[in-house]
Amino acid sequence: MRLSRYFLPILKENPREAEIISHRLMLRAGMIRQQGAGSFSWLPMGKKVLDKVCRIVREEQDRAGALEILMPTIQSADLWRESGRYEDYGKEMLRIKDRHERDMLFGPTNEEMVTEIFRSYIKSYKDLPLNLYHIQWKFRDEVRPRFGVMRSREFLMKDAYSFDLDFEGAKAAYNRMFVSYLRTFTRMGLKAIPMRADTGPIGGDLSHEFIILADTGESQVFCHRDYLDLEVPGEATDFTNDDEIAGIVRDWTTPYAATDEMHDEAAWGKIAEGDRLSARGIEVGHIFHFGDKYSKPMGAKVTGPDGKEHNVSMGSYGIGPTRLIAAIIEASHDENGIIWPESVAPFDVGIINMKAGDAECDRVCDDLYSKLTAAGRDVLYDDTDQRPGGKFATADLIGLPWQMIVGPRGVAAGEIEIKNRRTGERETLPIDAAAKRIGAA
Amino acid sequence: MRLSRYFLPILKENPREAEIISHRLMLRAGMIRQQGAGSFSWLPMGKKVLDKVCRIVREEQDRAGALEILMPTIQSADLWRESGRYEDYGKEMLRIKDRHERDMLFGPTNEEMVTEIFRSYIKSYKDLPLNLYHIQWKFRDEVRPRFGVMRSREFLMKDAYSFDLDFEGAKAAYNRMFVSYLRTFTRMGLKAIPMRADTGPIGGDLSHEFIILADTGESQVFCHRDYLDLEVPGEATDFTNDDEIAGIVRDWTTPYAATDEMHDEAAWGKIAEGDRLSARGIEVGHIFHFGDKYSKPMGAKVTGPDGKEHNVSMGSYGIGPTRLIAAIIEASHDENGIIWPESVAPFDVGIINMKAGDAECDRVCDDLYSKLTAAGRDVLYDDTDQRPGGKFATADLIGLPWQMIVGPRGVAAGEIEIKNRRTGERETLPIDAAAKRIGAA
Repeated sequence: MRLSRYFLPILKENPREAEIISHRLMLRAGMIRQQGAGSFSWLPMGKKVLDKVCRIVREEQDRAGALEILMPTIQSADLWRESGRYEDYGKEMLRIKDRHERDMLFGPTNEEMVTEIFRSYIKSYKDLPLNLYHIQWKFRDEVRPRFGVMRSREFLMKDAYSFDLDFEGAKAAYNRMFVSYLRTFTRMGLKAIPMRADTGPIGGDLSHEFIILADTGESQVFCHRDYLDLEVPGEATDFTNDDEIAGIVRDWTTPYAATDEMHDEAAWGKIAEGDRLSARGIEVGHIFHFGDKYSKPMGAKVTGPDGKEHNVSMGSYGIGPTRLIAAIIEASHDENGIIWPESVAPFDVGIINMKAGDAECDRVCDDLYSKLTAAGRDVLYDDTDQRPGGKFATADLIGLPWQMIVGPRGVAAGEIEIKNRRTGERETLPIDAAAKRIGAA
Repeated sequence: MRLSRYFLPILKENPREAEIISHRLMLRAGMIRQQGAGSFSWLPMGKKVLDKVCRIVREEQDRAGALEILMPTIQSADLWRESGRYEDYGKEMLRIKDRHERDMLFGPTNEEMVTEIFRSYIKSYKDLPLNLYHIQWKFRDEVRPRFGVMRSREFLMKDAYSFDLDFEGAKAAYNRMFVSYLRTFTRMGLKAIPMRADTGPIGGDLSHEFIILADTGESQVFCHRDYLDLEVPGEATDFTNDDEIAGIVRDWTTPYAATDEMHDEAAWGKIAEGDRLSARGIEVGHIFHFGDKYSKPMGAKVTGPDGKEHNVSMGSYGIGPTRLIAAIIEASHDENGIIWPESVAPFDVGIINMKAGDAECDRVCDDLYSKLTAAGRDVLYDDTDQRPGGKFATADLIGLPWQMIVGPRGVAAGEIEIKNRRTGERETLPIDAAAKRIGAA
């Protein structure tokens, strides 16, 4: 993409309304625009990051055997009356009346609707296990939305729902999602630690939050240092092997880890002081097992191998991709801007033409741009007539993993500079060698 | 995907509520489930088709120079008060109050919001032309939603918005979208004919609907037979060349074409009778030029080359991907089910194991499945223990372009059968040759 044809509205000043760094950087880098309290548009570069985050979430859900569907945002109140949550949910639920005065709501979550889908079609244990997920906009009417997309009212959520004959099956489904989440966050350059959690309005008796450590985190967390070195399950992980998956979950739940709410001072005291890690954390995922909490009142039953009817045992599994982007920035930035992990960077590389209009600089940049693009690299080419200083500041602010800096002096010598955004390392290389380094064929 | 691990809830009976063929077939093929009046969940196979349709829409928007963003579904009423449409829009707009009793609405379209984004950042003609699009859920509270996803209340829409300094620029932007739409529909196997249209609640003075011909179409349309042979612009079309694009638009607007509303009997009478095509049509896209209808009341201005301020000249451009899927089915089905164009088929090919459990049939199927998958083909492998008759009926109903039929007698002879869903042609081939024909490496 040529920057001259792109829409990247960089802000020079720090927006006053932004209290946390990710919110500030997302506004300054032209990723989002606030449209109202807790409501944001995703501008082109933000949308690209969101797509990359969603793609990873989707790939790891699919790998773990979940099937993607897409449920509507607006739900009927009657469905929520079946589970009893219509009255319970309180003011966070956005309640709506349509033109016929029917009660509806903007879905804050989808346990009821997915249970309705399940019970309409599935009658036998032979069609289990089943895990259905979707990535859809949710609305929760927070009293005081803040921190940008970290706590907004309208947000994107990946929510998966598992259905099994009994607790054993449901536990295996829970474990698959647990392992899928470890892989998902790792692929985004995050170190996420699973911690036992409260179940809140979803209900149930088993739940983990996935927490990443960041100095600017929203809450206090406590864990054993062992987590920092635990191996994350690789691509070859066999999600159809329940024992292998259970083994991974065991490894990742054995050392102590707890959020502030669930913290146990006695257990904490038994850990050697050097192994204790007390830090700030950000929740990036939450998984729940809740058995028949919804299947029982809503009549979601299957016939078991015993010929009898069983209420299915369920769980739900959430990741907020919009929130996750803020968390990634909280965990990965410096004083100059964002530092994207390669897997979610909006572009793989930026080409900075220090003297747009200079025939030689233009020729070298155009050539690099077409070579890298042909090799499948996603390139942002700064071909504008801004001064070099401004271009460098923008490149650092938007945080692409690599910068290729093309100036008249270097070009005369057949060289360009490449810079790694994370390490700050710069290297001057012959033009072709630089192109190869960045991935041109 | 193995069918035994998939969720494809085929209905044997014709659902009584479905009045039109696409609605009936989408329900029967397990693509969608109705969740309320005019509200649908997309089940796994429906979601796959939706993704493929959206990908084509997106690729052709990008090719034409539009940039993807994503605006929220919930909008502030104040924004719509600025344009005057909050009062005008009537009961189709879903109006909402949040917990602080602020007036909001579920967006039926986004002219106001995108104009707000534009005016916040863009101040100079040098940043034009600009075209921003998004693919987002919309809600229009139809009195009587019907025909499945063809006329639902919650539906997905791709809406693009162009901003230019003057009418000349806006006309060029309009033309680019016009040509982009021709390409988009052609890639989905549709013949879409642009027809002059009424502008309705969007407003403006220039508008075309894109209509596909289908016996079951919703409205009467009239056009010259020449449209059937007009060449659709290819991949090499240069969207930066305004004259080339204007030439294509000229070719595609010269022969007579009109919807019922805009039909001109006098002009129609001048066409030779054999060239008159009077048929049923379905609207699949709608483009509008409306100049300063929103930019003027909302103050979206740029400084021109003359140093003066100009209200930007705008257009908007809509395609409904959810509705489009129904239109594709209306245009492409037979008495046995859907016939997917290859570009939007949920899977490229189905493998039908006529005797699951038979060691040789299983071996041949497993082998075909892994070879085709490795070659990047999207395969649905029917490994269930249903009887062959049921498997054939399902394969025809869901309409994958190719079926590979693997039975014990053929396997013993080293052969399988392949069937083309569209033509119905069957051919018996040696196993490797069949795999190559379907695209294995």
